[in-house]
Parts: sequence; structure tokens; C-alpha cells
Amino acid sequence: MSDTETATAPDRRASEDWWRTSIIEMTPGVIRYRGYPIQDLIGHISFAEMIWLMTRGELPSQAQGRLLDAALMSAVDHGPQAPSIAIARMAATCGVGLNNAMASAVNVLGDVHGGAGEQAVEMYQSIAAQLDAGAAMDAAVRAGLDEAVDRHGKFVSGFGHRFHPLDPRAPRLLELVDEAAHDGQVSGRFANIARAVEDELARRKGGKRIPMNIDGATAVIYAELGFPAALARGLFCLSRSVGILSHAWEQTQQGGRNKGPIPRDYLWTYDGPPKRALSRTEPTDIK
Amino acid sequence: MSDTETATAPDRRASEDWWRTSIIEMTPGVIRYRGYPIQDLIGHISFAEMIWLMTRGELPSQAQGRLLDAALMSAVDHGPQAPSIAIARMAATCGVGLNNAMASAVNVLGDVHGGAGEQAVEMYQSIAAQLDAGAAMDAAVRAGLDEAVDRHGKFVSGFGHRFHPLDPRAPRLLELVDEAAHDGQVSGRFANIARAVEDELARRKGGKRIPMNIDGATAVIYAELGFPAALARGLFCLSRSVGILSHAWEQTQQGGRNKGPIPRDYLWTYDGPPKRALSRTEPTDIK
Amino acid sequence: MSDTETATAPDRRASEDWWRTSIIEMTPGVIRYRGYPIQDLIGHISFAEMIWLMTRGELPSQAQGRLLDAALMSAVDHGPQAPSIAIARMAATCGVGLNNAMASAVNVLGDVHGGAGEQAVEMYQSIAAQLDAGAAMDAAVRAGLDEAVDRHGKFVSGFGHRFHPLDPRAPRLLELVDEAAHDGQVSGRFANIARAVEDELARRKGGKRIPMNIDGATAVIYAELGFPAALARGLFCLSRSVGILSHAWEQTQQGGRNKGPIPRDYLWTYDGPPKRALSRTEPTDIK
Amino acid sequence: MSDTETATAPDRRASEDWWRTSIIEMTPGVIRYRGYPIQDLIGHISFAEMIWLMTRGELPSQAQGRLLDAALMSAVDHGPQAPSIAIARMAATCGVGLNNAMASAVNVLGDVHGGAGEQAVEMYQSIAAQLDAGAAMDAAVRAGLDEAVDRHGKFVSGFGHRFHPLDPRAPRLLELVDEAAHDGQVSGRFANIARAVEDELARRKGGKRIPMNIDGATAVIYAELGFPAALARGLFCLSRSVGILSHAWEQTQQGGRNKGPIPRDYLWTYDGPPKRALSRTEPTDIK
Repeated sequence: MSDTETATAPDRRASEDWWRTSIIEMTPGVIRYRGYPIQDLIGHISFAEMIWLMTRGELPSQAQGRLLDAALMSAVDHGPQAPSIAIARMAATCGVGLNNAMASAVNVLGDVHGGAGEQAVEMYQSIAAQLDAGAAMDAAVRAGLDEAVDRHGKFVSGFGHRFHPLDPRAPRLLELVDEAAHDGQVSGRFANIARAVEDELARRKGGKRIPMNIDGATAVIYAELGFPAALARGLFCLSRSVGILSHAWEQTQQGGRNKGPIPRDYLWTYDGPPKRALSRTEPTDIK
Repeated sequence: MSDTETATAPDRRASEDWWRTSIIEMTPGVIRYRGYPIQDLIGHISFAEMIWLMTRGELPSQAQGRLLDAALMSAVDHGPQAPSIAIARMAATCGVGLNNAMASAVNVLGDVHGGAGEQAVEMYQSIAAQLDAGAAMDAAVRAGLDEAVDRHGKFVSGFGHRFHPLDPRAPRLLELVDEAAHDGQVSGRFANIARAVEDELARRKGGKRIPMNIDGATAVIYAELGFPAALARGLFCLSRSVGILSHAWEQTQQGGRNKGPIPRDYLWTYDGPPKRALSRTEPTDIK
Repeated sequence: MSDTETATAPDRRASEDWWRTSIIEMTPGVIRYRGYPIQDLIGHISFAEMIWLMTRGELPSQAQGRLLDAALMSAVDHGPQAPSIAIARMAATCGVGLNNAMASAVNVLGDVHGGAGEQAVEMYQSIAAQLDAGAAMDAAVRAGLDEAVDRHGKFVSGFGHRFHPLDPRAPRLLELVDEAAHDGQVSGRFANIARAVEDELARRKGGKRIPMNIDGATAVIYAELGFPAALARGLFCLSRSVGILSHAWEQTQQGGRNKGPIPRDYLWTYDGPPKRALSRTEPTDIK
Repeated sequence: MSDTETATAPDRRASEDWWRTSIIEMTPGVIRYRGYPIQDLIGHISFAEMIWLMTRGELPSQAQGRLLDAALMSAVDHGPQAPSIAIARMAATCGVGLNNAMASAVNVLGDVHGGAGEQAVEMYQSIAAQLDAGAAMDAAVRAGLDEAVDRHGKFVSGFGHRFHPLDPRAPRLLELVDEAAHDGQVSGRFANIARAVEDELARRKGGKRIPMNIDGATAVIYAELGFPAALARGLFCLSRSVGILSHAWEQTQQGGRNKGPIPRDYLWTYDGPPKRALSRTEPTDIK
């Protein structure tokens, strides 16, 4: 390949174009994220602020960074009843690495298990768009709720909880939003929208309150901070990865081999055909 | 836990109900799939026929088994330009097991990379339903195509190929379907529908043919064999797993560490902000 | 980028070298696996034979293909107590695709859950190497067993089963090997080695037999067929993917949302610190 | 199931024992991590401190939390040449969710791509153990290095970089460790060990320095903070997940379908057998 040297320049350009990013720039000895030299960021920017910089392109204000921090730290775990956490623990007994256990678990944070925050942000943003177009709050909320029910079914993402009558994380997170709104750090608009959704849900249930849950509350924060709805899923994955790692690690220390969902002397219910003999009109014997 | 014994029966029943299946029944020394003792199946049933039994609940006829076999064996690989295959090879250089390399790769056989067969089966079945309701073939095909374009965009899943003017797998697979139809083993109905789709596509392109590809042809087989559309994705995953394993294994033997997409002296294009200094109105220095 | 055209040739060569394979060759309209045009293979080669061709580079004889087929079809499932199967079912209720459910499950077929076949092949091959070097069978088996115990612990991969006193798959698979050996299709050497391992294990247990299980029996087949040990893991992943798909699909049809390991009114045991108040000598209040 | 009620208590106990954790305690309306009510933690504890609490069981001091924060934020990304980042971007064009793209990518942070930090912590801890046993620093470092080379090969994890003559992240991280050591917040012992390793490496290379890289520097922090080596891998997975998410999201916005490693008009090198005809002594025609 004697002509490699002369061909190098166009070669590189073509590949560079296939792989294009505005996130990171590198030359030997130099790493910059979004333009900031890494050594200038280290020690000055928190992990949560780095997450903002990487996903958004600019640095947050301190108040914005603190709200993001609170949303991330509040959703790390909900116990081994959650499929993701159970999977992480089971995987940790199968002879794979912590990275693999984390991957199998994060992978299931899909539309049902990991999408509630994203769906709540979408609903809040849809209501906000209607307010911007001149609708009154109650009409906008009714329309937003109807749209959400149409799209995702009767359980409204972000509200109500099968286990907690009141999810203890939600009111505390809203308190932080209220403080930031009071200080003029965020608009407080999406907190108002979420509370109006709660009120409308209660009206629809004949007065029974379906209180905001962790997903509804973190969605308020993500919407206040201007994150696109799709990133709410991504941020939840980062947050829940902490619980996933912690449980995989605890299980590793507990030991066990091929831990299944239930103790080994429990079996499953079989409801298929009874024992039967192989007989086909056309025998397929492959010997 | 002195009362465990007396509690055993209800204990077991509760868990058995949570884990319920008609696929496999086990007692010590006994394994039955869909009612058939495993030792009766071994040596009499091929791997492809086992796939049918496991996913469908009954054994195929020999002719059905052979068609399924052909669909599975024909889609195993399309080279390292495909993201799934590239991922398998890259993963194999990162210090993870073959099972992990396979998982990262199978994982990306999503709506775009692995969903074309499923979408083609859906389109064929929709056209068949319209025929059943009394529509003429050309009207049913037009409606089915319009629906597919509405749902998935202008590239009609199962037809046309960015690389092959004529995908060499498709005509050969259709030949097998025609033979089976001639022998009365399958109806041949979905082969007719697929060819009518090809004709209609040519009409819409002013005569330029957009021939059936591998996904369109395997979808004909899956539809002829009565598989639900969603299983077409699952079967494709089984099939492509063979190519994924083969490439991961070949890369393992070639060696390499942390193989990226392009040679190491190629970089990416950076199109983000130029170098800038950290300065925020509210400093966040975390030290 | 006006110089792109003239640079095309060297450009392509550099990238081609980074991505190099002996598995698949393509030009527009042409797909060849290991040199065979795909349309020549379709209808003539079974799925199992294709798996051989893709991983080994040459076609198997019919007898070899049938043995591989039997090994693949016999290990597809062992019920939802297995972590991989439970994970597939749980994932199927989380709002992800079948491909994702399969990936999370295949991913955990690690050293403990999916490595027994690989480890058994290694042990058989190590014993065979000692025979080749002139050792007597009983000495070679003792050394091979000691090595396996040293490497993987007291449970010898491929022998014994926590649930089945006799795994019904193993004797039937060995029967097929014996038939092939009788017909001169395989050597029968590894079947003899595996039986000698069984005898030695019984001697070590004071006469109690620890019979070969599915992994020990498929390992005999893979060793007879000349597969490298590492591929035994890969082939098991292909095989178990069938059960994984079948269970994910069955669970999809059963429905459910965020299915965890145990019914929702069961909780876990908490054995951590009791309720306590946050108080640090250095308060970190991030507000 | 009329006897369910009376059986409930032992029922629950059995399952609770199978799923046991000291991380999280829940009753309706109550969530406690390691004993701390979640609402007491929100707003007072940063995301990095929560990661510490979840994985370690106790809260860090502020100084410990800041060092962990710095290690986590400094390793988020190294560009799309890294297999994990390339995989995330490719996956994002395949029609899967952000959670799936993240999983396929995190999954490959194996021994080679994600294990350097873990291996460096192991080496530092091994050297520290020899110091504790009375060895002199230079003897302990030589022994620790020899052990690392024996186990993982000639590239010593944590030192040297194929691209950066000096990794700009390492000196800045060590500066933070030195400050914390000066303030008596950490011992500084592992910083000394790492620098002694650097010196010994230079001696072995005839004076050429092989400077500490990001993995060697974060490993100093993790060792100073008392993390077990295996958790260094887990923490790196959390950190790199940020870059993985950011690149998957950027690629989603750039669009594209089935993005492979190289532009579509580039092919790979085929080095397998030339075109050949199917002919076997035993024909296997499956029709």
C-alpha cells in the first residue's frame, strides 16, 4: 500500500465526516467537552453539572444544576420488585461482569418501566403549548390529559402509585422547585401545570386524589429546566443505573449461582398440553 | 421458620401462579416441551422444527419445517456494514464474553434494523384481510401500501435494496414457496400478494421495479406459515444471531483491543464551540 | 471536497483493511458465504448446517450436521427458574422489543449460567491431549478432573444436576453419538472420555453416580465435531435463544406490566440499618 | 385458593428471604436508603454522594464526596473512536430506545475497555498490602508491577496512552488528591504509590516516562476513598454512561438509519475462499 501517505488527507476527511460530533474535541494531550478544556472543568463542575453540559451543550446555572442533581439522586432505586433491579441481581450470579449486569438491567427501562417521566414531560409540554396558544389552564389540562390517556392508556404517567398512597419523593422535589421559582431561578410554570393535572384527575375520580409520583415530580424538574422529553428517559436511566449497580454489587457479595426469580424448590404452573407421543402424518425423523 | 412445612403447599401455589407457562413442564427426571418428552424429540426433530414447536405449540409438517428452515438460514448475515455485525466485532475486542457480544448486537435489531420483516408481514396480512372482506387484489394492495407508507415512511419494508439491484435471496426463497404451493403444502396466497405489491410499486415509480428483498421474501414465508407478525422479528433475531456469533468469533481470532469503527489515526469531525474558558456568573467551584 | 473522487481508491482500501472477514463476500446482486452463492445454499442446507458453515468455514457432512442439529435443539429451554428465561419474561413486560428482551437474557449466559458446555469441552480436550501424549485413560481422566476442579470449583461442569437425578437429554444424545461412531461418522473418542469421567466421579463419591447432564452431553457432541471450546458457549447461546424468544413471546401474550420476580404483595427482607437521621459533622446541604 | 389468607405469613417470609437487601426499605408511603428517609436526603445530598451512600452503606464526608464527584465527572467521554461510544451512536439509528442504546454500549465496558481502573486499584492495593507487611516502597512497587504484567500483559493498566503523550485529566485529578491529603481528608498514600509506579515504569523503559492516564488517576481516588477494586469498574460504567447517553442523543438528532462503522460505499476486505459450487459427497438437499 505504497500510496497510503499521499492518500491520507482525503481518507481522513471522509471518515471524519461519517463520525461528526459537537460534544468532544481531541488532539494529542487535549480533551475539550463543548469547548471547555477538561482540566478546567475538573474540580469546578459537579457530576450532575457535567451531565447537563454533555447533553445540553452549555453549563447550567448553579440553581439549575442543583435541581438536576436532586432529580437524579431521588430516583436511584425502588427495590428488587422492579424488573430492572431484579435482573441486575440475577445477572450478578450468572458469571458476567458488573458492566454486563448493568446493561441487561438498564436495557429494560423501556416505555413501560422507564418511560413514565418522558411521557409526563410530553404531557406537561403539550399543556404548556396550549397555554401559549391562549387556552385557559383547565381546558389545556383537560385536553392534555385526554391526549395522554389516548396515547398511553388509563394510567396517567407521573400520577398515582400502586404501592405508595403518597410517594414521599414527590412533595419534597416540588418543594425544591417552588423555592427555585420563588428565587426566580425557574418559572414554576410546570409545577403549576402538574398540580392542575392532579386537581383534574381528582375531579375525574369523584374527589379521590391520584397524587403525583416520582416520575411526575422529576418530569416537572426536567420540564422546568428545558430538557426535551426524550432526555427524561435518558436521565432516568443514569439515575436508576446507580440502584442497579448497587444491587448487582450487593448480590455479588451475597454470592449465589444462577439466582432465579423464586427459590429452587418452587416451580411454575404448567398449563400446556399433557404428555403426548410424537407422531406426524409425515415423519421427519432426521437421523 | 418452624411452620414452613405446613405452609409449603399454598406457598408453592402462589409462586407457581406468578410464573405460568404452557411451553415446558418439568418434574425430576422429566422435561416435556409442549407435552412431548424431550428424549422423544431428540434425533427426530430438527432445530428449525424445534423453533416452530416452541413458538407455536404444535409441530409443523415436514414441508412447513423446510420452509421455516430456509427462511432462517437465508438471513444469517449481510456483512460488517450492518450495525449489528459491526457491534458484535467491536464488542469481541473489549474483554467481554461471546454471550455479551451477541447481546449487544441482537439488542439493536430494532424497528429500523430488524423490523422490516415484521412490517412486511403486517402489510401482507392487512392486504389479505381486505381480500377476505371482498376487496379486489389491486384495491387491497393499494390500500395496504398506503397504510404501510403512512405508518413507516416512503421506504416500503421488504422491497428495494440500497446495495443490491436484485437481492439474490428473494427469488430463490419465492421459488421454494411456489414449489410448496404447487404441492398443496401452503396456500401461495402471500406470494401472490407480495408479487402484486411489487407490481403496484413499479406502477407508482413509472415502471421502475423495486424488487422484493430478503425481508419481503422471508415475510412471505412467515405469513404463509401463519406466524404472527411480531414473531417475524423474533425469528429474524434467531437467524441474524448466527452471523453475529460468527463475526464475533472471527474477530476474537483476529485479535485486537478496543476496536473502534475506524482506524486509530482517523478522527472525527468536531463541529461544536471552539475552545472557551469556564466562567459563570454564579461560580460553582465544588472544591 | 472536490478531491474525493481521485482519492476514492486508497480511501476504500484503508477502510477495507480495518474491516476484514473471510465469512461473507458481497458485490451488488451477489452474496456469498464462505465462497458459496447464497442462492445455491437456500433449500439445500439446513439452518444447523448453515450455523456450521458460518462458524467453521466448510460444510459439514450430513451425519455431522445431524449431530449438531441434535445438540442445538436439545438445549433450548429449562424453564423460568433459569435467570435467562425469567429475565426474558420480565423484560417482555417493560415496554421493549422482542430483540431487547432477547438481548438482556442472552447477555447473562456467562461463565456460570452458560459456560458449562465450554468448560466440559475444555476438560474433554485436555484429557484427549494427555491420551495423545501417551497417558492411560484413568490417569488422564484423573488429571483432567483435577484440573477442572482447580479451575472452576467442586461442581464439575457437565456432570450432575440439582433438579434431575438423571437428565433425560443426556443418554439420548449419547445414543446418537454412539450410532454415528458405529457408522464411522465420528470417532466416539469423546463419548468414551465422558463416560470415563462419570466413572471416576462415582469412584470419588464412594460409588454414588453423578451422571452426565445436558452440558456434558452436548459437549461430547461439540468435541466429537471438532468445535473449539469457546464456540460451545456461542452455540449454547443460539440454542437457548429459542427458549428465550418463546418465553418472551408467551409473556407478551399473557400481558402484564413491569413483572417483577415475585407477586406485588410480597416484599423483600430488609437487613440494613434502622431508620436514622441525616447528620454529618460537615453538613453538605446542596441547596 | 381459599386457604391463601392463612398461608400468607409464611408465604411472604419465604420469598422475602430469597430477595434480601440492606440497601432499601419500603412500606407504603415510606422509602429509606440505608436507613435514611428519602425526603431527608433530597436537596441535601448530591448525586455523587448518593452513589457513595448506595454502594458503600454510609454517607461520605464532604471532602470524600467531592473527590468521588471529580472522578465521576472526569471520565464521561473519550470520543466516538471508543467502541462504547460508537456502539451507542450506531444503536441510536436502529430503531431502539435510548435505554437500549445505552445498554448495548455499557455492555462492552469489559475487562479490556472498562477494566483498567479496576486493575489499577488492584495493583495499588497489592502494593499497599506489601507496604503494610513491611516491604520498602521500591520493592513493593516492583513486585506489584510484575504481578500486574503477569496477570494482564505488558500494557500496565492506568499508565500510558495510545493517543495522549500526557493525559490532561490525570495531573489535575492528582492535584485534587494532593489538596485533600494536605487537608488531612485522605491519606495520600495511593497517590504516592501511583507516582512510584510511574518512576519504576520509567526506569524499566530506560528513562522514557509512561505517565498516569485517566484510569490510573481515578484509581488513585477510588483507592484513597476505600472503594473495592470491583466497584471501580461499576463507577466507570456510571461515568461513561453520561458520554454514551450524550452521543446516542446527538446521533438521534442528527438522524440516519442503520449507521454502520464506515460510509456505505466503503466495503470490507474479503479474504475467504473464492466462489465455489455446492457439492458434497453426501448431498443434504433439504427439499
